[in-house]
Order: sequence, then structure tokens, then C-alpha cells
Amino acid sequence: MNTLCIAVDAMGGDSGWQSVLPAVVMAAKCYPAIEFHLYGESFVDDEVNALMRSHKSLSNITFTPSAASVEMDESPKSALRYKRDSSMGMALQSVASGKSHGCISAGNTGALVALGMHFLKCYQGLSRPALCKVIPAIKSSSGDQLLGAKRAGGSTHSYLLDLGANVDCSAQQLQQFACLGAMLCSVLEKSNAPSVRLLNIGKEAFKGSSLIQEAAERCEKTTSLNYQGFIEADEIFQGVVDVIVCDGFSGNIALKASEGAARTVMGNLRHVFSRHLFSRLLALLSQPLLRCWQDNINPDKYNGAYLLGLKGTVVKSHGGADKQQFFYALEMLIKQLQQQSAAVNTTRSNPNDESMKATNMDVTNMESVFSSTFGSNS
Amino acid sequence: MNTLCIAVDAMGGDSGWQSVLPAVVMAAKCYPAIEFHLYGESFVDDEVNALMRSHKSLSNITFTPSAASVEMDESPKSALRYKRDSSMGMALQSVASGKSHGCISAGNTGALVALGMHFLKCYQGLSRPALCKVIPAIKSSSGDQLLGAKRAGGSTHSYLLDLGANVDCSAQQLQQFACLGAMLCSVLEKSNAPSVRLLNIGKEAFKGSSLIQEAAERCEKTTSLNYQGFIEADEIFQGVVDVIVCDGFSGNIALKASEGAARTVMGNLRHVFSRHLFSRLLALLSQPLLRCWQDNINPDKYNGAYLLGLKGTVVKSHGGADKQQFFYALEMLIKQLQQQSAAVNTTRSNPNDESMKATNMDVTNMESVFSSTFGSNS
Repeated sequence: MNTLCIAVDAMGGDSGWQSVLPAVVMAAKCYPAIEFHLYGESFVDDEVNALMRSHKSLSNITFTPSAASVEMDESPKSALRYKRDSSMGMALQSVASGKSHGCISAGNTGALVALGMHFLKCYQGLSRPALCKVIPAIKSSSGDQLLGAKRAGGSTHSYLLDLGANVDCSAQQLQQFACLGAMLCSVLEKSNAPSVRLLNIGKEAFKGSSLIQEAAERCEKTTSLNYQGFIEADEIFQGVVDVIVCDGFSGNIALKASEGAARTVMGNLRHVFSRHLFSRLLALLSQPLLRCWQDNINPDKYNGAYLLGLKGTVVKSHGGADKQQFFYALEMLIKQLQQQSAAVNTTRSNPNDESMKATNMDVTNMESVFSSTFGSNS
Repeated sequence: MNTLCIAVDAMGGDSGWQSVLPAVVMAAKCYPAIEFHLYGESFVDDEVNALMRSHKSLSNITFTPSAASVEMDESPKSALRYKRDSSMGMALQSVASGKSHGCISAGNTGALVALGMHFLKCYQGLSRPALCKVIPAIKSSSGDQLLGAKRAGGSTHSYLLDLGANVDCSAQQLQQFACLGAMLCSVLEKSNAPSVRLLNIGKEAFKGSSLIQEAAERCEKTTSLNYQGFIEADEIFQGVVDVIVCDGFSGNIALKASEGAARTVMGNLRHVFSRHLFSRLLALLSQPLLRCWQDNINPDKYNGAYLLGLKGTVVKSHGGADKQQFFYALEMLIKQLQQQSAAVNTTRSNPNDESMKATNMDVTNMESVFSSTFGSNS
């Protein structure tokens, strides 16, 4: 399997195949060397054929019909019992069997976690996987101050997990998520000892729930972690730390609140600039600047989260994603797979490379590193 | 006590009296009919005297020295044991004794809750008070779409609670916070049966933690509540509901994440507009529009949260507030006290007023309504 292959659940998300198919066509054009294996209910085949007819040059998309699809409001239990042969289940099986290198779905998160655990299994010692997202550090001027962006001791982005795969978390799970996030960051950023913080309602050591207190204690004791204490939610976009860890409930709230606030702020500027003739003229003149600004902060661009801790690469797109947003998530998966394969090739071709030795892992051995830390005490 | 009197903890917050004193002077000038009782360590007296000398017309500020002040990182237990005669404690006692109508502090939240419960007591049946904030519904254009702002079935703002007074909440507490929020909204907005939702990671009924599921069940069964299900964090600013309820951990995360995102987005626009000569010229021309925009969304303006459920009016300012932000919180307290006193006067002068009957309460009887709902099953 030299060609990079990606399995796609064509039925997932609020608008299902209607967003997924056009996004896959866009990706297939941009990445002609990658193969896209679509899984969906048989009626979607006609849509795929129609698309293939109108894009004759595309030969890197295949379609396999599935017996069912997972509903967006279906319980994980029901999905696990009745929907193993769904489009989502088949995409995951394609990764498990080695046919695809990774898969993507915009479907039901709970079902994706349950079916992912069933078909791909978790790392030894990990009870459940976590959703992890790249959070950009956005350049910001306030007087002379520059927040975020690459600066001494700062990161251009942070990894935030969990984002909703686990609503009730134990302190040990938070500690495990910290390790998972640090491992991913080590591999993707070639970063040595990435800094880790726990999301809390204050920075002072005594603040927060008993759960967060116990998690902090566990992280402090984990010698392989570069744990640096608590972080508050208003610092998420400032690039002050590499990995931010929280339970899935808080993470989901933090992410959605930020997206909602960013969209509201952007929308209000549009509103203010559209009020009268002169303001509309100014908006027209400022168009390139406003577009650049919108491009910097647009939450759509950051669609896609890694389902981390499974023995296989899975990306979850937002359920409400449109074709452009789904395309962004697809691109994220592609880039991760390309980086993983580059990392593996580097290690193989140059086993004495010091940068690889420093991080002491690549994606293929993340599992063994994790298992050696947690395998005995899970 | 006809004149409105406000007790101020002059020592609270990261910058203590240095932010509080100038803010109180600003307020004393804007509201000459209101009396401000400052409480602070004796050395602050000199600062107050110096201020009074340079603002000779001000006769509505008094200062009472306190024996101590609560540290920002002090535990609630220690504050309750050793700091009852602190500036914070004395400001609360001033309300308890009837000398002041309400008080404000930018100090340690945990200590304010502990000392507030000690001096003012909670409503009967309520185990702990909650921090509640007014969240603006911000006008936003996205194509033809208008989010938030007053529209059919929408609110111009929502009440969000709890914001950090309770990090570990029970389902019953969430139900009680729902009632507290609805009561406050009824009184301040003269709104009949305000709509209430629980903050969750999805709108579907099966989503969320076991805690949120039980809280939803309890809210559904509370006939006095107009409970309408779950709300996701990206809808907080859309004015889709009157009251949003969550535990203090999630609420604090949602609020700070939103503030952080809004500041980042604003800061990035400044950054984009400051890059070269032409963009700076455009920024100059757009100054009035940008100022209007900044004014609409500036999180500083919304500093101040009600500590709800105590038998006395207490407002908590953000600990990091500067003088302008502390002034906004002071104004919020003043407006609430003015509205309360207007509501009481309306009921007294016109006891048959239908609008008051509809809401069936004013602030003075919030406690009895609450106690009759929860007094028996707490």
C-alpha cells in the first residue's frame, strides 16, 4: 500500500453526502496521487457516478455501498449493536484491515467513538480515545502588545483535547489525555518535551474542582510530561502552551463559545460597515484587509479533530460542516497522514537522526510509548 | 434610608484600591445622589483624602478603615476564619445591617461567597449562591441573516449562571440556579415566564453528562419554569433564550473563552489594519465605525456579575478589572438597585398593577418564592 488511501464516511453530518461528495471531489482534484474510498448507502452511488461523469479526469475516487448509516441522534449503544455495517463502520473497518491509512466522518461523535473502539481498539492502558484539535495562536495587536504567534517561548498553535468524546472524565483520563496530546505534538511539531497545561477556572494552584486538582497532581508526577500548571480559557488563542487538556464537556463548551464569539464579532463588524453609503464604500476599499482578517480567524478553516488514542488514524469533522468545511477537515487528515509517513520514512532512512531521537517516538510507536506509561496501572 | 447607599470593598482585585478608588470617584461624580461607603485598610485613607482634596465637590464618599484584607489567593476557609473584619467582610456587613443597599467587590470569589453566606445568608432551601451575568445579544450580519438583537421571540440579552461560584454542582443546584435566573429576569425585565435552557454539548435530549441529564429532568418537572431544553455554547450571544444555566466550571470556561476569542479577533483586526501606510489610512477613515464596533462587543463593558441567592445585593467585579471596568460593574450594581427600588415602589403604589401580578414577584419577595419552591425538598 504505497499510495495514500483515505476512507470517507459519505453519510455522516447534518447534510450527509450533499456536503461530503463535493468536498471529496475538491480534494481528489487537489491531491490526484491520493485515493479516496467512499462508503455510503447504495442510492448515493448514482450521485457519485453523476459526479464522476462531470469530472472525467478523476480516477482516484471509489465507492462501496453500505447496508445502513448511523443517524445523528442515534445512541452509541445502538450504533454498536445494529450499525457495524454502516458507512461509518465500513470506513473504520477499511482502516482496521489496512486498506486505508486513515478515515474521516462528520457523523455522530458518540457512535464514531464506540465503533472506532470496536474496530480499531484503544492503546493498551487507555479506556477511551479523546478528540483533539489544533487551535491557532492568532496574531493580535493591542497597543504595542503582541499576543500569540511565534515568539520567544510561544507556539504558533496549541493542541486542545478532549472536545466531547468523553463528557464524564476521571482524573486519570485527564492525565492520559495530557500524554496523548504531548505525544501528538512531539510527532507533528518535532517538538521536544512540549509544554502541557490543564484548563481551569483560575491559574492559582488551589483553584478548580476536586477532579482538576487530582488531575494536576497526577500530571505533576508524570515525569515524561512537561506539565506547567493551569491555563484559563481566555488564553486559549495566545499560544502560551503546546497542549491544553480538559474534559470533553468543558472542551466542547470552550471551543463552541470561542467559535460563537468569533462569528458574532465578525458579524457585528459586517453589520456596522453595512449601515450607510460611506461605510459601505469604506468596506469596499478595506475588502482585501477584511478578507485577510477573516481568513486569519475564520473558525471554518479549523474544522476537523483527531480522534486520538485509537490504533488507527481517524478525523472527526463538525456535524454541521458544509462542503468547504468538510474539505478543510479532509486536508487536515491528509496532512497528518503525509507527516506520519514522512516521519516513519525519516526514521527508517536515518535511524540515528538526532531530532527523531529527541522526541523518541513517531506515530507508529506512540502506542508502545503510551502503553509502557499506562499499561500497568490502568 | 432613602438615599441609595453602596458599600465598596476598596482592597479587592489584582490592583486593589488603585483601580477601585478612581472608579468610585467617577461614579460619585456621575451619581451625586448616591452615597458610596468605602472599606479598606487604613493606609488607603490617605489616598482617599488626597482624592477628596482634588475633587472638592464630592461629598458622597465615606471611608471606614478595616483591620485586614482578603488575599486574592486565600482559601475561602481561611477568609471565613480570619478575615471577617476585612474590607470585604465589612462591606458585606454594611449590607447585612441595612446601612447599605448593596455592595461590590473585585476580590477573591471563593472568599466573597463564603463571607457573603456568613453575613447575608442564602435563601431558605438554597445551599450556595451563584454568579450571574448579563450576556448581550449582539447584532450580527451574515448575508441576510440577523443573529441576536430584539426579534420575534428573541431577547436583547440573556442571563448566564453560574460563572464560578460553584465548581462542583449537583443537579438540584442547577435546577435551583434555573429558578434564581428566571426570578432575576422576571424582576429586571418585567418578563412573564422567561425561557430557560441548560448549557450542554449538544441540543439532542440524549446528549451530555449524567449530571446534565438529571438537571434537565428536574427542570422539566418544575412547573414554575419555562424550561426549553439544551443550548450549545456557540448560541450564547444570539439572544435565543432569557436564562442560560450551567455549573460554575463550564460557565467560567464559556465566558472566558468568549472574551478571549473576542479580544483576539479584535486584536487581529488592529494588527491587519496597522501593517502598511494605506491600511493605516483606511483605519483612520474607519475610526468612527471601528469605535462603534468595539463599543458593541467590548467585553470590558460587561464586567460585573450578580452573586444571586443571598439575602442582600452583591456584585462581583472581575479580579483583573481596571478603573474603567470596575466603574462598569459599579454602574451595573447602581442600575440594579435603582430598578429594585422602582419595582418595590410600583408594587406599593399600585398593588393591583397587572404587569407586576404577571411576574408575581419583585426582588423583595424573590426569597419567599424561592423558599416556597425549594424550602421543603432541600
